[in-house]
Amino acid sequence: MDKLTTPQIEAQLKNLDGWTYDNGSICKSFVFKDFKEAFSVMTHIAFVAEQQNHHPNWENVYNQLTIKLNTHDAGGITQYDFDLANAIEQIVSKG
Amino acid sequence: MDKLTTPQIEAQLKNLDGWTYDNGSICKSFVFKDFKEAFSVMTHIAFVAEQQNHHPNWENVYNQLTIKLNTHDAGGITQYDFDLANAIEQIVSKG
Repeated sequence: MDKLTTPQIEAQLKNLDGWTYDNGSICKSFVFKDFKEAFSVMTHIAFVAEQQNHHPNWENVYNQLTIKLNTHDAGGITQYDFDLANAIEQIVSKG
Repeated sequence: MDKLTTPQIEAQLKNLDGWTYDNGSICKSFVFKDFKEAFSVMTHIAFVAEQQNHHPNWENVYNQLTIKLNTHDAGGITQYDFDLANAIEQIVSKG
């Protein structure tokens, strides 16, 4: 999977609400009602990530979740990251 | 729940393998076989944290998990943090 160029990244970010490109990752922070809601969403994402064989760097404290996606093997952002970001948006919007 | 003093924190850390006191939190990093094993442990910890009504600050990427515990309301470390740290050790040692 090829590393995307900055214009390619910027073009795809336009279709993703609230995601930004920062320090080599595409990132978004989410705030949920409480820990149970945050961890429920994380669990749903975990299954999708495992299925896609592409995993997030994520940090959680109580109802807050920050997700950073990049493709370590490619040294940047690839389509894998946008596929996972789009899946995450679908999961969160259904929650 | 009262904030523990530094000597009290240091005394309790002696009974916790690999935990350190750093920047206002007690911390430990774990490495598991793969993402499934890391997230399985996280799920087990999530239920205990919810039951204790005390939640970790944790960061995961693939098979790595870094946990930081403190008690926001007390502005430091309390017995809640050590109770959760001990529960985490039990979970990980059984995994």
